[in-house]
Amino acid sequence: MRLQPIFDIAEICAQKGVQNAVLCPGSRSAPLTLAFVNHPDIQTRTFSDERSAAFVANGMSLETQTPTALVCTSGSAAYNFAPAVAEAYFQQIPLLVFTADRPREWIDQYDGQTIRQFEIFGKHVKQSFELPQEYDHDDLLWQINRIVNDAINIATSYPQGPVHINVPLREPLYPKANEKVAFSKEIRVVNKPRINALLDVPTATSFQQRFLSHTKVLIVVGQTEFDSSLTEILQAFSKSRHVPVVAEIISNQHVIEEAITHADILLTHSAADVKKSLQPELLITIGKSVLSKSLKQFLRTHTPKEHWVISQDEKLADTFKSATEVISILPAQFFKQLNFSVQKSGFEAQKRENYFRTWEAKEHQTARAVSSFFKDFGLSEFNVVDLLLKNLTIPCNLHLANSMPVRYANAIGLTPLNKEVRVFCNRGTSGIDGATSTALGQSLISDHPTVLITGDMAFFYDRNAFWHNYPTDKLRILVLNNHGGAIFSMIDGPAGLGELKEYFVTNQKLSARHICSEFDFDYLKLDNTRKVKNLMKDFLQMDGRTKIMEVETDAVSAKQTMDQFKQHIKKSYES
Amino acid sequence: MRLQPIFDIAEICAQKGVQNAVLCPGSRSAPLTLAFVNHPDIQTRTFSDERSAAFVANGMSLETQTPTALVCTSGSAAYNFAPAVAEAYFQQIPLLVFTADRPREWIDQYDGQTIRQFEIFGKHVKQSFELPQEYDHDDLLWQINRIVNDAINIATSYPQGPVHINVPLREPLYPKANEKVAFSKEIRVVNKPRINALLDVPTATSFQQRFLSHTKVLIVVGQTEFDSSLTEILQAFSKSRHVPVVAEIISNQHVIEEAITHADILLTHSAADVKKSLQPELLITIGKSVLSKSLKQFLRTHTPKEHWVISQDEKLADTFKSATEVISILPAQFFKQLNFSVQKSGFEAQKRENYFRTWEAKEHQTARAVSSFFKDFGLSEFNVVDLLLKNLTIPCNLHLANSMPVRYANAIGLTPLNKEVRVFCNRGTSGIDGATSTALGQSLISDHPTVLITGDMAFFYDRNAFWHNYPTDKLRILVLNNHGGAIFSMIDGPAGLGELKEYFVTNQKLSARHICSEFDFDYLKLDNTRKVKNLMKDFLQMDGRTKIMEVETDAVSAKQTMDQFKQHIKKSYES
Repeated sequence: MRLQPIFDIAEICAQKGVQNAVLCPGSRSAPLTLAFVNHPDIQTRTFSDERSAAFVANGMSLETQTPTALVCTSGSAAYNFAPAVAEAYFQQIPLLVFTADRPREWIDQYDGQTIRQFEIFGKHVKQSFELPQEYDHDDLLWQINRIVNDAINIATSYPQGPVHINVPLREPLYPKANEKVAFSKEIRVVNKPRINALLDVPTATSFQQRFLSHTKVLIVVGQTEFDSSLTEILQAFSKSRHVPVVAEIISNQHVIEEAITHADILLTHSAADVKKSLQPELLITIGKSVLSKSLKQFLRTHTPKEHWVISQDEKLADTFKSATEVISILPAQFFKQLNFSVQKSGFEAQKRENYFRTWEAKEHQTARAVSSFFKDFGLSEFNVVDLLLKNLTIPCNLHLANSMPVRYANAIGLTPLNKEVRVFCNRGTSGIDGATSTALGQSLISDHPTVLITGDMAFFYDRNAFWHNYPTDKLRILVLNNHGGAIFSMIDGPAGLGELKEYFVTNQKLSARHICSEFDFDYLKLDNTRKVKNLMKDFLQMDGRTKIMEVETDAVSAKQTMDQFKQHIKKSYES
Repeated sequence: MRLQPIFDIAEICAQKGVQNAVLCPGSRSAPLTLAFVNHPDIQTRTFSDERSAAFVANGMSLETQTPTALVCTSGSAAYNFAPAVAEAYFQQIPLLVFTADRPREWIDQYDGQTIRQFEIFGKHVKQSFELPQEYDHDDLLWQINRIVNDAINIATSYPQGPVHINVPLREPLYPKANEKVAFSKEIRVVNKPRINALLDVPTATSFQQRFLSHTKVLIVVGQTEFDSSLTEILQAFSKSRHVPVVAEIISNQHVIEEAITHADILLTHSAADVKKSLQPELLITIGKSVLSKSLKQFLRTHTPKEHWVISQDEKLADTFKSATEVISILPAQFFKQLNFSVQKSGFEAQKRENYFRTWEAKEHQTARAVSSFFKDFGLSEFNVVDLLLKNLTIPCNLHLANSMPVRYANAIGLTPLNKEVRVFCNRGTSGIDGATSTALGQSLISDHPTVLITGDMAFFYDRNAFWHNYPTDKLRILVLNNHGGAIFSMIDGPAGLGELKEYFVTNQKLSARHICSEFDFDYLKLDNTRKVKNLMKDFLQMDGRTKIMEVETDAVSAKQTMDQFKQHIKKSYES
């Protein structure tokens, strides 16, 4: 069959571990759609809004840690993928983006759905390919096979990310009535096993010695996917070497009992001399971005003598302006090798422990102050987030939308009681555009419930996440509806702008109630403190219903709560 | 004030004719937002979903024929503009896209909302600029002024289009409490008047002579904005020279009484010998794309001896595979100059008239056949569109969504009775993604009602068009809700795919009723033939309410109607 090389793309994908395909409606993409739909080992689903579809695919890849195939027709469809592709690029999510296209000779000819799709995602994909549009020469068949293999290998090599394959397709796009879509039995697959590189012995020894030469060593973990083996190594290392681990909520290190999870508040409120005592001599960072502005400011102004960035990124992200070494292996491997270092005893070990205890004391003080704030339970957004997090003692996926929800949750922090909670947040681009779709994508294929905490701006922005025909009964959404982007009330600039504030604090009037009625979801309205306990229980019960819980406030009261919180912390620091 | 050069951007824009600015919420973009909001001569509005906002801006530019300024914050916001930017590029809509950015040195440093915004719109803008981020050298101030002037000049030169200015901004982003945003009194503006080029005399004479050497001359008008002076010239030319003008609905030439508005149906159903008799010797095309596949096929297979493309596009769009001359001046100017040609009399003139009469006869036959189909009024989508078009005898903007609505409307055609109707359709990329937002954008600033005919896929795709706080009482939307992309039932490939059809014909269950209730619009449900007349009257009445009229069918019955229509036309051709 003429389209056999296109159908075989699904076979290569399946053999190389692609489990899910997200398909968007269209005719030009029919050969790709038919290939994926007919393949027995790939689960396909269709979504009509390409912007949402691409974030759904991200969510699936986050669950499977394999690339999800994402398919659209020609034209502006591809550009609607772009926000999610950029997020996948910076969050390092493996993704395989297939965009069907008209034959090359028809580009720019005013003939139907045709834009300039070649390399359309610019610098936001790891690699961009275009398949040939003729299949009548062996070299072209070889090229198609090679490109698809290569694309998957690139998407799954560290750092993982999106790869784009543009697929010009010539009519006829559909097989004839008597033709069945089948897959070639003998298809070449090019494997590229991941090499978990080791440091050579002299290099490892050098790092061990340099590690021992510092008594104030600090580990900071940026955004990292949940990985229990990494966490175990980190925990053991931290405990035995007395090295504090600064772990924000998106670092997924909340299982580590001694982790510094309140660095943001701690560093916002600490006096200069305390900060001085917390300054590291050696800073070791792993993972991607950190949330806290005060953490960044602290490290940028309290520069360590050495800063080892454990990262396989191609480019140096020098977030704290202090990098001195880039160590391009996996963090778990690095700490394993570092752990061989002989532990210094006596005075040096004591000094290391002292530094650890200083961080620990401040962390304990801050955690107690934070926790005491929630004693008098009200219905502020912040309180509701606290209550929900405390109830997340089951295995689940916790998605935090930008920008206030992830900040609220990070201020509160998870604890080892939440040990089976895996945390997700679109901090690649830090956009609000696809939070719901990402959570939804994961919820469709995860064994566990998926809980999203979102603000109203992110929630309504991405409302097309619900526009499909798949059951979403494992999805739970808490909407913090302050009818506008309250975050802009909390930063100083726009707060002082008077009537112009409306251009920053969007005054939006919607409620989640309509969406629930439109899509037949359970709507739980948090408007009474007495109802809270029962509503929370109902919310987390898995009974085959999709549930959205909404708390409605306004930007002013949201800001008041945060002001009170700051006051409360300040007072507790003074006492 | 440090930010003065950024504030002055609004002053340059205002002096160069920018009337509207569409602002999306964000903090990085605050200096740009403050500049536009404070400028007395620029009307600003804010929209939260950037994808919708950008189409809104397109709609405003379509109304004013001047560039609308579009502003977003840093990060993935810019990518949400991309679908509308691509549409603006191919539909040649002037647009000025400002994307706020972090300072360049912070790109790729895992620091907040930062993606790679430099040249982010790739090949879908006429030009891409980046402003300097320091203002402490005279040359930098000169550069900012020069870029903004140049950008507007480029956006408004033929072919018009979007221009991107990336604006890295350093904190502080807000003026101090005692500082007021003001504009420099003496600001340089670089004018670039449009030159409506004339053909030099020898060239014009040559075209006149070549024109006279052909007796079968055909004019085909692709998508063109409403322009009564062009229409008058075309009409006069067509009438005096007996040159038929093929004018689809998106050509906005429905005022021309003798226009061939049913070319699609005419050429689909004509026998080979008739087509042969319609073949031009000289084809003259103006405008952008045409809708009809059969028109394209006819011209590609009945190649003229000469094909003059009147176009100021940089690249040749050779839609009909027959271009022999590209004449890079305005169409109105070209026909003015061609009109000087002495009219041949006698035999030659008679032959020219014969060719004209052949087209005219087929057009009349087809128009009668089409019109007789709607005698027995039912509630099919097609019938409802016919009725609405017949009622559009007032000045209004008619927006047609892709893909079935514009095809329905083109099959029916407008007539001189609709002479004050201006037709709009996103045929740049032919996407469904921004139809409602584009119509909404125009409705916000137009003196006349704006009527959108849309399918359910386009309508729900772009539902965030309603997520803002501006009155939309001049907007009227007819939703043809067949609960899926019925067009895929109408093309042969997917129709034969059995159960796989669900991946092509999306089975979507929503109704416009919920949106009306959510946004407090009037909901008019067309479910009874007896109600039709009153509902149509109510729908078009301007009484301060936003109105959505919905007719619910399904893909099967939509297809049946079109099959019946084809049968009806076929029969009328046989009799």
